[in-house]
Amino acid sequence: MKTVRFQEHAMAFAEAEVPTPGPGEALVKILASGVCNTDLELFKGYMGFSGVAGHEFAGRVEKAPDAPDLVGARVCCDINWGSEAWSTRHGGDARHCPGRRVLGISDWDGAFAEYILAPTANLRRIPENVSNEQAVFAEPLAAALEVSQQMHLRADMNMLVLGDGKLGLLCACGLRHFCPGLVLAGKHAHKLAIAEKHGVTVRRIDQPSDLEEKILPEFGLFDVVVEATGSPDGINHALNLTRPEGTVVAKTTSHAPSLINLAKIVVDEILILGSRCGDIGLALSFLKDGLVDVGGLIEARYPFAEFEQAFAHASRKGALKVLLAY
Amino acid sequence: MKTVRFQEHAMAFAEAEVPTPGPGEALVKILASGVCNTDLELFKGYMGFSGVAGHEFAGRVEKAPDAPDLVGARVCCDINWGSEAWSTRHGGDARHCPGRRVLGISDWDGAFAEYILAPTANLRRIPENVSNEQAVFAEPLAAALEVSQQMHLRADMNMLVLGDGKLGLLCACGLRHFCPGLVLAGKHAHKLAIAEKHGVTVRRIDQPSDLEEKILPEFGLFDVVVEATGSPDGINHALNLTRPEGTVVAKTTSHAPSLINLAKIVVDEILILGSRCGDIGLALSFLKDGLVDVGGLIEARYPFAEFEQAFAHASRKGALKVLLAY
Repeated sequence: MKTVRFQEHAMAFAEAEVPTPGPGEALVKILASGVCNTDLELFKGYMGFSGVAGHEFAGRVEKAPDAPDLVGARVCCDINWGSEAWSTRHGGDARHCPGRRVLGISDWDGAFAEYILAPTANLRRIPENVSNEQAVFAEPLAAALEVSQQMHLRADMNMLVLGDGKLGLLCACGLRHFCPGLVLAGKHAHKLAIAEKHGVTVRRIDQPSDLEEKILPEFGLFDVVVEATGSPDGINHALNLTRPEGTVVAKTTSHAPSLINLAKIVVDEILILGSRCGDIGLALSFLKDGLVDVGGLIEARYPFAEFEQAFAHASRKGALKVLLAY
Repeated sequence: MKTVRFQEHAMAFAEAEVPTPGPGEALVKILASGVCNTDLELFKGYMGFSGVAGHEFAGRVEKAPDAPDLVGARVCCDINWGSEAWSTRHGGDARHCPGRRVLGISDWDGAFAEYILAPTANLRRIPENVSNEQAVFAEPLAAALEVSQQMHLRADMNMLVLGDGKLGLLCACGLRHFCPGLVLAGKHAHKLAIAEKHGVTVRRIDQPSDLEEKILPEFGLFDVVVEATGSPDGINHALNLTRPEGTVVAKTTSHAPSLINLAKIVVDEILILGSRCGDIGLALSFLKDGLVDVGGLIEARYPFAEFEQAFAHASRKGALKVLLAY
């Protein structure tokens, strides 16, 4: 089968054997996948990655020796593969298993290939009315909705999402079902328009300092600020816009460290909550019910054979979702 | 009356009129006070401070036109004086009123003076069996116990306190009543001995990297790490010692900003909780019940007339509590 291997900041198609599922595993044929900003970071060397990336996809189960009723099913996949022995005493889960494999990110070949292996326990059936392209968004939408699983969002909370990139848009469009008054601040009129169609209150800013100079005077301090700018300095703007005893949700996984004034966090007793992957089943449920229209986030489609062009397109500053068809 | 005024990194005794209490206020004669690290920071210019510092004290009410039964009572004081109009919708309190005055810190003359004014609503009676010297510790002990008011501490949690300075010691000795297995890591054998007398498990380290090299292998990752090192880099060691989905409590209010790797916070979904002042009544209750023996933290006593010597002593690296008697 054809795979795309990343190695030392280069990528190349490589032929590989179609893998054979072991006990509890399934062979999944990839039907569609998406390029995520994390893939761009992996390519630059994030986590010392080399191998087959790709963690946003829809597939069809071709073999599943221990779960024959799954064969033929269209599926998404929970990308964290923790050891069975792992448990934390206080509600931890496989997503945080120290020895975990993460599909297309760490020690588990991903979806930039014609086939993958996955534990059947990680697979989630795609509802009939959700297309393959929509299902590619299950993983990033789950990450956006993860905020609602980590803290109790209430309708009367003032929530601000910073950043109108792919993750910021999904956060805004997904989380506004919990906090209908949610505000999205970003720099790009055409991206903000996507969220506005979803009923999100949007504000365009020209530069980060507009957050303090324009958003703050209009809305006051927020109860919750989701920082999804992708910039190491986004956290400081988020802190400036959060009320005492409020919460900043950190979504940006930047290579570069951030310079943060901890005294403000201490004096204002602010809570910073790191937030990563979420519940794929919840995201598929949102997609099934039409709560988030992900179609507007698709910027371009390429056949898998044109992966390099697709990746180059996804690397353009400000690109929305680039999809691959297999 | 005699006061000590800080101004532009200098201090001097200044005579002032004994103030007259307005409606709802009391005149309090200071009986004892303590020098806090925050005072040292204020002297260096933290918060652009100039005025009369001092926020740890015990006093006696001399006048209280609206609360005559308070006259003669020994009292401590909640140092945050919020506007009556202030309320946040989600359980906020006067400690976070944006226009608040903070005794001896912001817009409210403090206890390095023979008398202060205070709203009677902020005064707390000192229990009979608590001495003036012990009562000076009510404010810092309240700040240490604040962690227990912000999050639900359970006895089976693994908690680590980083730093054996005054605040670290009070955190360890106070919070070990919630988490009996609490571990304190610090650099000073004589300070650790104070916590050890309280039943705290202590470990001496020679340098910060010992946290990762010695504490981590012995105890594993902690559920909660209280960062009270006073150093801008303490937060990163705290993060290295916290389990995924665990909590870092930030107590350090350093002038210098911290360089933090946010990606770790996001990937491990760690929560950083800023923590400041606490409930004076709770601290007085702890002192009354003998749950924390603060006597061991007293390093030296000076008469108020020797304030400059006392302040110089408190400024010595590693000094414990320096008290003033009036």
